[in-house]
Amino acid sequence: MTFEIGRTVAQVDEALNRLLPPEGTFPEEIHGAIRYSVFAGGKRLRPLLTLSAAEIFGVPQLHAMPAACSLEMVHTYSLIHDDLPALDNDNYRRGRFSNHKVYGEAIAILAGDALLTMAFETLAGEASAYFPAATVVRLMEELSKAAGVSGMIAGQVVDILSEGKQISAERLDYIHRHKTGALFNCAIRSGAIMGGASLAELRILTSFADKMGLAFQIVDDLLDITGEQALLGKKTGVDLERQKATYPALFGLEAAQKKAVDLLFDAEQELEAFGEAAASLYYLAQKLVHRQC
Amino acid sequence: MTFEIGRTVAQVDEALNRLLPPEGTFPEEIHGAIRYSVFAGGKRLRPLLTLSAAEIFGVPQLHAMPAACSLEMVHTYSLIHDDLPALDNDNYRRGRFSNHKVYGEAIAILAGDALLTMAFETLAGEASAYFPAATVVRLMEELSKAAGVSGMIAGQVVDILSEGKQISAERLDYIHRHKTGALFNCAIRSGAIMGGASLAELRILTSFADKMGLAFQIVDDLLDITGEQALLGKKTGVDLERQKATYPALFGLEAAQKKAVDLLFDAEQELEAFGEAAASLYYLAQKLVHRQC
Repeated sequence: MTFEIGRTVAQVDEALNRLLPPEGTFPEEIHGAIRYSVFAGGKRLRPLLTLSAAEIFGVPQLHAMPAACSLEMVHTYSLIHDDLPALDNDNYRRGRFSNHKVYGEAIAILAGDALLTMAFETLAGEASAYFPAATVVRLMEELSKAAGVSGMIAGQVVDILSEGKQISAERLDYIHRHKTGALFNCAIRSGAIMGGASLAELRILTSFADKMGLAFQIVDDLLDITGEQALLGKKTGVDLERQKATYPALFGLEAAQKKAVDLLFDAEQELEAFGEAAASLYYLAQKLVHRQC
Repeated sequence: MTFEIGRTVAQVDEALNRLLPPEGTFPEEIHGAIRYSVFAGGKRLRPLLTLSAAEIFGVPQLHAMPAACSLEMVHTYSLIHDDLPALDNDNYRRGRFSNHKVYGEAIAILAGDALLTMAFETLAGEASAYFPAATVVRLMEELSKAAGVSGMIAGQVVDILSEGKQISAERLDYIHRHKTGALFNCAIRSGAIMGGASLAELRILTSFADKMGLAFQIVDDLLDITGEQALLGKKTGVDLERQKATYPALFGLEAAQKKAVDLLFDAEQELEAFGEAAASLYYLAQKLVHRQC
């Protein structure tokens, strides 16, 4: 049985609310800033991926939740830092002011730092309640590699250095695979690791994640061109304005659309090995590619 | 036998050099920035504390080294972010340009993020080679708590919010205990945890760390007034200029000096429980308080 996305998102929100220090904790400024961005209406894709990958192996949602939330913490930190004036200089995020526009740059930088740190604290503390230490160490290894300088950060660096430049398809691929792909991958692999997946199972799910992550990113780029500003909660046409390298810019709209659909098809083929158990993950993949926002 | 500080620092440098991706790794910009700050002539206090605390329990230096280096990574990240224009806006650090003056703000922010992440990667990967997973998880818990929003980051937040304001002795204490104390504490406790310290032993070393950390900070404040710029490698008189709350500012030079010496004395009393085994830690405490730079 596939999970209901809306209900699961609410459960992720609840867990995040429980994991973050309560509002009003001293020093208030930083906790306000952290909560502002964590509860800014994110789609919780990475937690959903973790939970649905864990579901394949019968891991109870309660047990998989801390790791799922740690992924969202890392994702949120990366958005806060990405929006900073020195990086993407975005004043808006999900239809609201970005973190530094509300709390100032200093607090925004520290709020990002805090969330990154909290992700590891959550694994060490909360995930430890349900899994043996060896599993927790593996989750930490996955997360630190995916978020670090050979993963997400490498993608951010190359993305920044490529702005306003003509870049090759290979370079674009590198950016996507690192900037969004690494964490997507980690989300899915973390679910599998908690489920005690075999090496062969992990390999299949990694291949699924690679394809899904890329499809998701292409759809993101497409929505910047064809999407509705009101639905997306952010300005469209930004990539074009900034001469950002994107799939549609490089290959054209139609070819990019076709590539996303092909990738989704290939990704879903991978899931056949798991049969009905992967229904949630299958459903989620569909939703992520055929979305309007 | 007490270790030779100079030789141990060289061993820490060597280990850090081995743990960081080699220069020239793609994308080069970020690795250059990371190495620039990690090898900027830091005193490696936190690694030295970890190694000398581990020595009490007979942990081989080779085994304690990854955790020792993870502390230095977190410390270096915090300096890079602290120097940013939005925070302390320091153009110099240890007699050289600060990270963002050389690599730009975007890369400096990401280099800090990368180092923080790498600290956890180092524990998950390298420390795992020598210690059971349960010990590694405890190290991660210590580090994430110490570096996070209830530790170092809380201190940074309150420090920023206090600049240019008259603050109480309690508030100043809070800042020190969190901004520098938490990581000092973690460095010492991590060494003890690797050594399988009992709860009672951990309690003693935590008390030692609390006192030492505060003494160290007071000496830092004193050196900003009485120290030699050339020796320190940074401008002196900065705290006064910025109306920063410090011990000397609050209590006067002499009272602050006395407080540092008293704290050192009290701290050293704690170590008596360990006898000769704590000789390195004892020696280090002396050096840290009676330093000229």
